[in-house]
Amino acid sequence: MLKPLGDRVIIELVEEEEKTASGIVLPDSAKEKPQQGKVVAVGSGRIADNGAKITPEVAEGNTVVFAKYSGTELKYQGTEYLILREDDILAVIG
Amino acid sequence: MLKPLGDRVIIELVEEEEKTASGIVLPDSAKEKPQQGKVVAVGSGRIADNGAKITPEVAEGNTVVFAKYSGTELKYQGTEYLILREDDILAVIG
Amino acid sequence: MLKPLGDRVIIELVEEEEKTASGIVLPDSAKEKPQQGKVVAVGSGRIADNGAKITPEVAEGNTVVFAKYSGTELKYQGTEYLILREDDILAVIG
Amino acid sequence: MLKPLGDRVIIELVEEEEKTASGIVLPDSAKEKPQQGKVVAVGSGRIADNGAKITPEVAEGNTVVFAKYSGTELKYQGTEYLILREDDILAVIG
Amino acid sequence: MLKPLGDRVIIELVEEEEKTASGIVLPDSAKEKPQQGKVVAVGSGRIADNGAKITPEVAEGNTVVFAKYSGTELKYQGTEYLILREDDILAVIG
Amino acid sequence: MLKPLGDRVIIELVEEEEKTASGIVLPDSAKEKPQQGKVVAVGSGRIADNGAKITPEVAEGNTVVFAKYSGTELKYQGTEYLILREDDILAVIG
Amino acid sequence: MLKPLGDRVIIELVEEEEKTASGIVLPDSAKEKPQQGKVVAVGSGRIADNGAKITPEVAEGNTVVFAKYSGTELKYQGTEYLILREDDILAVIG
Repeated sequence: MLKPLGDRVIIELVEEEEKTASGIVLPDSAKEKPQQGKVVAVGSGRIADNGAKITPEVAEGNTVVFAKYSGTELKYQGTEYLILREDDILAVIG
Repeated sequence: MLKPLGDRVIIELVEEEEKTASGIVLPDSAKEKPQQGKVVAVGSGRIADNGAKITPEVAEGNTVVFAKYSGTELKYQGTEYLILREDDILAVIG
Repeated sequence: MLKPLGDRVIIELVEEEEKTASGIVLPDSAKEKPQQGKVVAVGSGRIADNGAKITPEVAEGNTVVFAKYSGTELKYQGTEYLILREDDILAVIG
Repeated sequence: MLKPLGDRVIIELVEEEEKTASGIVLPDSAKEKPQQGKVVAVGSGRIADNGAKITPEVAEGNTVVFAKYSGTELKYQGTEYLILREDDILAVIG
Repeated sequence: MLKPLGDRVIIELVEEEEKTASGIVLPDSAKEKPQQGKVVAVGSGRIADNGAKITPEVAEGNTVVFAKYSGTELKYQGTEYLILREDDILAVIG
Repeated sequence: MLKPLGDRVIIELVEEEEKTASGIVLPDSAKEKPQQGKVVAVGSGRIADNGAKITPEVAEGNTVVFAKYSGTELKYQGTEYLILREDDILAVIG
Repeated sequence: MLKPLGDRVIIELVEEEEKTASGIVLPDSAKEKPQQGKVVAVGSGRIADNGAKITPEVAEGNTVVFAKYSGTELKYQGTEYLILREDDILAVIG
């Protein structure tokens, strides 16, 4: 099991085919393109400047959209994941 | 449905024709040009440095002006959206 | 009507002729040159790091000087405006 | 009258001749050279991160030294001024 | 013994063979690649902006994933270590 | 008299000959080289983010070491000074 | 005597021969290499954003590891020192 630290979130990448099915089509533009995935683990949250912990807004099981090229990819027990900061997540689909 | 996170706002882009009709004409200059759209979803707000949540000023249904090249474009169920931070919104029209 | 957000201020640009009349002449130098305009709308103010709202110092009707190349230009119902942050305003004339 | 905003200060530039008389000679070096002027107006002060206003240290009438190339020059009713932030002022002479 | 300061953590690098065994395979991509190691020492924690100490989330003995090229390598008594900040650790495995 | 503002400190530069006598020899390296001087005036101190004033650690008469190329040089009534921020002072000698 | 200011620490550099003896061998890599030294003086500590002083973790006599190219070198009464910020110290050995 992978347990993300702080404000990190672990995403299981959604396959291209699935993505089209769920209705997101990436427009053909020069802008930073979003990607889609499923949240599989959420860290305990970012620490505010006064030391308080900020509860993450996303939860396990959420389907989320994030900016392409955010985070760090890794393969764990045969599955590809992306670890990113919650702030790199743009929106929850659902 | 797309639910933006934190200080993110989802904008439905207003067509060029509509834009002229509503009275905004982009001046022909070297400056960063504004764009116009309609707010379709608003995140729960930015977290201040002391951990307090800051209520967004914009609301669903607002027509807003924002700096071109802000945010991330995505197409969802056939409609083109832009996800940007509330701070990238310059003004509300209305 | 354009309602600026946060610490944004909307300025109606003062014509070159008017500007000379009001007594400001831009010196011929390599430094960043100031420009002059009239405040037509003021946002509700910047949020301090502790979440408190900071009341803007400028008010509607003020004639202000700001650094050239600040902000975003837009034309609305035939009038040219500039939207900038209050911090880009250098001084009030009057 | 020019009223500076926030932590801005308006300086009337001291002529080269006067400057030598008052005893400051700029050394011939590669370092950033200081300049001298007279404070003609002081803003209400910088806002600290907790929203408190910080009273400026300089006052109208002070002769001050500041780093060359700070601030924004403008001519108002025939006189040349420099608008800079209080933090760009290095020292008060007197 | 090496005692890391502040928010620093000391990692003993896990050999490539071991890494494959534990199930992490680095994908062949242009993105920043994660690496794996075992925490051997944890600093007393980062100081928040208000002076409070923030207890680290990782503990001695944890197997962790971190972004490649984070931190500073050193060899101590024949063993290779990596000293990095806790924030450079992406996730704990286990 | 020169009165430095905020966290600024005014240093009278120590002559090269004196410097060698006092025991500091600048090593011949690519690193940023320190310089030595005598504090002749100290500002009232830096303002912390919460608006509190922080009492300077250096005092008039201290001989200090600072990084070369810090601050702003000026000549006042025939003497060469350097105005720098207290944070640019590395150590007090004595 | 050299008394460092704020969060500065003065290190006496450990000779290469000694370094090998104490068990640290710098790996032959492209990464930033650590260096080793002995703490001879510690400043009174960093000031937190709320104005509180943060007690340093290192103490006189500690043998420490720090990132090469941190700080400022100086020779004082025939001995070579390095002045760096406590945050540039990675770990204490012992």
